Amino acid sequence: MSRLLLRRLPTRALVHRPSHAVRTYASSTPAVPQFNWEDPLGSRNLLTEEELAISETAERYCQEHLLPRVLQAYRDEHYDPKILQEMGELGLLGATINGYGCAGVSTVAGALITRAVERVDSGYRSSMSVQSSLVMGAINDFGSAEQKDKYLPAMAKGKIIGAFGLTEPNHGSDPGSMEAVAREHPQKKGYYLLKGSKTWITNSPIADVLVVWAKLQETGKIRGFLVDRKQCPAGTLETPAIKNKTGLRASITGMIHLEDCPVPKENMFPDIEGLKGPFTCLNSARYGIALGVIGALEDCIARARAYALERKQFKGNPLAKYQLIQKKLADATTDAAYGTLAAIQVGRLKDEGKATPEMISMIKRQNCDRALHNARVLQEIFGGNAVSDEYMIGRHVANLYVTQTYEGQSDIHSLILGRAITGVQAFV
Amino acid sequence: MSRLLLRRLPTRALVHRPSHAVRTYASSTPAVPQFNWEDPLGSRNLLTEEELAISETAERYCQEHLLPRVLQAYRDEHYDPKILQEMGELGLLGATINGYGCAGVSTVAGALITRAVERVDSGYRSSMSVQSSLVMGAINDFGSAEQKDKYLPAMAKGKIIGAFGLTEPNHGSDPGSMEAVAREHPQKKGYYLLKGSKTWITNSPIADVLVVWAKLQETGKIRGFLVDRKQCPAGTLETPAIKNKTGLRASITGMIHLEDCPVPKENMFPDIEGLKGPFTCLNSARYGIALGVIGALEDCIARARAYALERKQFKGNPLAKYQLIQKKLADATTDAAYGTLAAIQVGRLKDEGKATPEMISMIKRQNCDRALHNARVLQEIFGGNAVSDEYMIGRHVANLYVTQTYEGQSDIHSLILGRAITGVQAFV
Amino acid sequence: MSRLLLRRLPTRALVHRPSHAVRTYASSTPAVPQFNWEDPLGSRNLLTEEELAISETAERYCQEHLLPRVLQAYRDEHYDPKILQEMGELGLLGATINGYGCAGVSTVAGALITRAVERVDSGYRSSMSVQSSLVMGAINDFGSAEQKDKYLPAMAKGKIIGAFGLTEPNHGSDPGSMEAVAREHPQKKGYYLLKGSKTWITNSPIADVLVVWAKLQETGKIRGFLVDRKQCPAGTLETPAIKNKTGLRASITGMIHLEDCPVPKENMFPDIEGLKGPFTCLNSARYGIALGVIGALEDCIARARAYALERKQFKGNPLAKYQLIQKKLADATTDAAYGTLAAIQVGRLKDEGKATPEMISMIKRQNCDRALHNARVLQEIFGGNAVSDEYMIGRHVANLYVTQTYEGQSDIHSLILGRAITGVQAFV
Amino acid sequence: MSRLLLRRLPTRALVHRPSHAVRTYASSTPAVPQFNWEDPLGSRNLLTEEELAISETAERYCQEHLLPRVLQAYRDEHYDPKILQEMGELGLLGATINGYGCAGVSTVAGALITRAVERVDSGYRSSMSVQSSLVMGAINDFGSAEQKDKYLPAMAKGKIIGAFGLTEPNHGSDPGSMEAVAREHPQKKGYYLLKGSKTWITNSPIADVLVVWAKLQETGKIRGFLVDRKQCPAGTLETPAIKNKTGLRASITGMIHLEDCPVPKENMFPDIEGLKGPFTCLNSARYGIALGVIGALEDCIARARAYALERKQFKGNPLAKYQLIQKKLADATTDAAYGTLAAIQVGRLKDEGKATPEMISMIKRQNCDRALHNARVLQEIFGGNAVSDEYMIGRHVANLYVTQTYEGQSDIHSLILGRAITGVQAFV
Repeated sequence: MSRLLLRRLPTRALVHRPSHAVRTYASSTPAVPQFNWEDPLGSRNLLTEEELAISETAERYCQEHLLPRVLQAYRDEHYDPKILQEMGELGLLGATINGYGCAGVSTVAGALITRAVERVDSGYRSSMSVQSSLVMGAINDFGSAEQKDKYLPAMAKGKIIGAFGLTEPNHGSDPGSMEAVAREHPQKKGYYLLKGSKTWITNSPIADVLVVWAKLQETGKIRGFLVDRKQCPAGTLETPAIKNKTGLRASITGMIHLEDCPVPKENMFPDIEGLKGPFTCLNSARYGIALGVIGALEDCIARARAYALERKQFKGNPLAKYQLIQKKLADATTDAAYGTLAAIQVGRLKDEGKATPEMISMIKRQNCDRALHNARVLQEIFGGNAVSDEYMIGRHVANLYVTQTYEGQSDIHSLILGRAITGVQAFV
Repeated sequence: MSRLLLRRLPTRALVHRPSHAVRTYASSTPAVPQFNWEDPLGSRNLLTEEELAISETAERYCQEHLLPRVLQAYRDEHYDPKILQEMGELGLLGATINGYGCAGVSTVAGALITRAVERVDSGYRSSMSVQSSLVMGAINDFGSAEQKDKYLPAMAKGKIIGAFGLTEPNHGSDPGSMEAVAREHPQKKGYYLLKGSKTWITNSPIADVLVVWAKLQETGKIRGFLVDRKQCPAGTLETPAIKNKTGLRASITGMIHLEDCPVPKENMFPDIEGLKGPFTCLNSARYGIALGVIGALEDCIARARAYALERKQFKGNPLAKYQLIQKKLADATTDAAYGTLAAIQVGRLKDEGKATPEMISMIKRQNCDRALHNARVLQEIFGGNAVSDEYMIGRHVANLYVTQTYEGQSDIHSLILGRAITGVQAFV
Repeated sequence: MSRLLLRRLPTRALVHRPSHAVRTYASSTPAVPQFNWEDPLGSRNLLTEEELAISETAERYCQEHLLPRVLQAYRDEHYDPKILQEMGELGLLGATINGYGCAGVSTVAGALITRAVERVDSGYRSSMSVQSSLVMGAINDFGSAEQKDKYLPAMAKGKIIGAFGLTEPNHGSDPGSMEAVAREHPQKKGYYLLKGSKTWITNSPIADVLVVWAKLQETGKIRGFLVDRKQCPAGTLETPAIKNKTGLRASITGMIHLEDCPVPKENMFPDIEGLKGPFTCLNSARYGIALGVIGALEDCIARARAYALERKQFKGNPLAKYQLIQKKLADATTDAAYGTLAAIQVGRLKDEGKATPEMISMIKRQNCDRALHNARVLQEIFGGNAVSDEYMIGRHVANLYVTQTYEGQSDIHSLILGRAITGVQAFV
Repeated sequence: MSRLLLRRLPTRALVHRPSHAVRTYASSTPAVPQFNWEDPLGSRNLLTEEELAISETAERYCQEHLLPRVLQAYRDEHYDPKILQEMGELGLLGATINGYGCAGVSTVAGALITRAVERVDSGYRSSMSVQSSLVMGAINDFGSAEQKDKYLPAMAKGKIIGAFGLTEPNHGSDPGSMEAVAREHPQKKGYYLLKGSKTWITNSPIADVLVVWAKLQETGKIRGFLVDRKQCPAGTLETPAIKNKTGLRASITGMIHLEDCPVPKENMFPDIEGLKGPFTCLNSARYGIALGVIGALEDCIARARAYALERKQFKGNPLAKYQLIQKKLADATTDAAYGTLAAIQVGRLKDEGKATPEMISMIKRQNCDRALHNARVLQEIFGGNAVSDEYMIGRHVANLYVTQTYEGQSDIHSLILGRAITGVQAFV
């Protein structure tokens, strides 16, 4: 299945590592075990050959094709939709889905892809997560056979771009209170009219198809709709971009305004009702974030380590020689290693049908929190130089704040866990 | 003395609070004491009438004239030099200096001005600190009578802009290893030739006069020079701006390249030698930062509180009702209140000749660290919305990282304190 | 007024510092200001001559007379009631009260005494706080003239020991729900019958007089009663000690069981009703704790510093030379210095009638939290040796946990502050 | 192999859970996966049937036979040597050793035993770790065939008690500087004379055989000796207990004083030289600690959760309903879950010959740090009640401080990791 993905690999012998690479990916294991700061607790040992190969493919693409353009993209707040096509060509989109031209790889393999992308930029990863986990995932899990056939193959190739409209301006953490509504079209049979606003929607300004969750007026229950931009009459769908963001600037984010937008009934997900639908999708996306942010953290570690070894202060000693610096590096690598193991474990359980949403809350919360915290601490190693965006770490720090916040702000996940632990809810 | 400053006040009766103000400055004390979240431990009680008036003048100017333009300036990475002229007209520049058209106010009053400016933006405050503490302060403390007469009055009015060149690319935390050098001009008697590079120099691209510290070749001792841009032959002084900064974008920062730049001997500070000169200036600037960052933190508190009261989630409760939110606010206000008291105390001691540099290390370190930490925590209250720069807090967070880093990175101050406490140095 | 207190001083010339002292109290100020790790931000500068003298008296007594016995007392969980008599003789009890043989010193002076005592042990300070702030304070604030005349002079001398019964087994943080009740004696006119249980009551097993708060059955309002042990019929008052405590073992703690204990009406505080009574007393006690815990923290700093200078590891370097050690010391001294200034400020405001309970919540919470946190971090400097109780720091760590917990657990004060900041309560 | 161990199980049907148990060990998995706060990330899924059985045997013994006596033992600072015999009967000692009557179980299984013991008390676990990992491990790894035959079978049964003498009074973190020395006996051929002192030696006062590391005078190299108490002439071996400990009071700790103690050459480990010997043993012990402390942390979680559900404050709500409480529980369970996975991973790598000492430094450091931190935070849930030792959590908090400190203080492990990450050492 994932041989598809492997076949698309550029010939390895031809590939040279880019000069800005700060991380190596040796695949041979030495006879006497040696500590590897890039994988301190030997998580590679838990991966299959196939997973290792997928990871390497994704890392190589990201380092060679994404890294060189991210700095300018972030400065300009510009997202190039061709990136999704490139990813599609490599088989990186919807990779855990079986069929429809998707690679059908393990949950862990899917997350190794997100980690590779997020090692470059959380914004690039966000765009891919929306495409893969939220939209393709929703269609695969809840779509009709026709919906799947229509959208999945083209989305897998990155030729159709998706967005996922759940969050509303007044209900960030409490989607159950959403105001978007779908009512029977008073004239046009077989159609609903959708009305409402969604915000902070990754990809929305460039999306071809938008999964929009809204309450069906007749039942009051939340249902999912595939809003296909080219079917929408002028003025019924607006997707303005949100500009001047303080993070994730290499991705594109916007709103969705639906003003009595007619959507044919066959574009509604047939069976799924209530919050179960969006939460299932979020669950997959959150899982990908949990390992994804480790990529960003690992990039911070690699850059901070390289800087600490190169930069000399006080009698010509490298910063790496100072205890206060070493502690920062030790703490960060520990959290990266622990977070990796936890994510792999939950991925395995997911594939065995043994994972629960609370497990994913736990790893999403913890890995985002620790990635952000450590990225900030590692930034200190650069001193004033971190103010130059060319050292890259400031971008990760700004991005990771967002990852801590979206798809369940950290405190919300604390309360989800608290409820699971105690049986008592404290949302008030 | 500071009546000068007070006279320049716009008539208070005519002033209306701008609608975006989130902080009030009531000056009457109620009969029964009431807790005031804007000044939890009653620090106003420690201020003189004059200091309160100066603070109010500065706050008013900043809220009315700086706040409305900061968002765009930060986006565009643009600093308007007219700001220094406006500050000069109000008497806010070099305010603690006696004579030369300066207000001659107390150390605490000077810091209340920095707090007011930094409540809007740390970049604006940085520009002002360089002008007031680093450059005017250096000239006032170490300049000859002629130097003072020539520069101070015009600088006090903001008509001459200053920059302070100490930090070099390879010696951020260890200025004693500087490489910039001044040697006797081989042909032109009475002149030195300056050679070397400085970096991360606030105001350098727009500065008219640059205090440059360099080692005198004949003695190996560090001396200070007033490099007057209009006296420098073409090609001997370059001050390129550093762009694409991740913080302090509303200020302008650059490098200083001196390529055998001829400087007349009378532009050298006559007596001061070694690191004592720059460290004295840094000491004053650091003091201003210590109270300045509290302004930024207080603005974060005010904005987070307002947001928490307005934003409703889960059954229509304001965020302010949630325990996890209240704790964040309680922690932040505590640190703001403590930091304010500590800064006032050191200011008083400074005026009494009882302050030591280590005291200033302590309050600079602690207040910057706590301002940054709490700003980040308060940012969480905004959830995903903080990604919009219009909520302002993301800018403070990015700025405060820089304040923690410059004029002594936090860890360096830890080691300065550690040395003072134990008598043992641990820099190596 | 406090000359009383000063007169009781032993002749200073005769006093030698005990060999275990790790702190010095130089009173002369050097010409050039020098950093003093024992008072990093020059708080002495804020004290009057009288306050400095009182502080020195108290410190001397504590170092000479309490320190030598605390280790054994803590091991044995033994409290010697003579300590209160010794304190009484020096004028240290109820020192802020005017008249009744009390010293009538400033609020700050009173807290300097608690700091001196707590530098030795939080348990000793607790016992004194109960006597001074909770019981003598309650009688002074709310007692009738007869009650004051009867109890205050003897309590000031430590000849009558007091306890303060507010907390109940089921209502630790919510005294408003107390179950203790006072009803009219059905037979004996002019008497109430008290019934209920109080727990975690410092001094209760040895107390002669117990202030007990109970709801008056007829009104449902909380009232205060002076339960005089020698007036209680057998079986109506039991005050069993709580043994095997994990902290504050040098103080004695117990329960109060009242089983229809008859108390004459004239032993009820005449006017005060509701929670205002106990909260006023707690407010004073909390204030004393806020500066008291700084004493314990300062002792930890002094001991850790001395250990770090003496203990050598790796090539004979003292621990004090290691960056990770220096940072711990820098952090702790900063918090001690900040906490001292905040406590002095609130003390001054209290004497001016400008303090609010929330201010005291703030400094009680913050100083206890920081004292505990830093004590734990400083303990790490001792490595395994801290397991020996002779290094003293383990005792402080265990004690400071209790101070964080009693008279308002830290989180409760967070919510008190949160309510004051936002106007919204989050206790439920 | 470990059937030995399994055979010794009491019939399960006869076993009733003790009433003080706060943790359940359900072995059936529900059809729909459910979140289990006792094993949030499903680590049981990684264990073999045998490992689960061993874990259950150990947990059962500990809850039934150790838990009932620990409180009094801790109060009295008393260690009952019969405990090691009981453990020996169940096959819990030296369980990872093959042969000599040992169970020969996996590294992970061995650590599951330490976790079970430490769930009751870190002191009990320490005593067992010394016996199993440090002494039996040393003999098994480095002993001659005669040494193994002589000691291992009896030690496996707990009939011979061992101690491990490495740490010296002046060289806690730097054993390479040890002063203990072994010189050829001047008269008695085939004997060495050992001289030196060791401190903080668990089990030393009751040990029958003490592994003592000393420098061989002739080579200056560190060698290991089996000092057999009954062979030592009077006055040449003293092992006084260290009393009045602030933690680990349920274990016995002492010193070792060797005053020209004659030891036959055949009691020296034949081949091992230098620090490699003791460090190999420490490595195994540290591994056991890494999972062991999770047991203590899990007990804190279980007790805090039970308390939070039972204790009601403010309108009758259980503490468990408060957000600040839920966050504490969520944080602690996350760290316990992550720490468990990391320890299992390193155990697997160890059995595959792929583990490095730095991996063990990482998990020992992190798990001890997090166990201690979270235990302290969970303690806050008990408020003042935690001061009663009957709530058990104060004991865990005190114990966990010690685990953070011994076998490599946390900061030392930070520097070991820092060195491994950067290639630069920062011990000096």
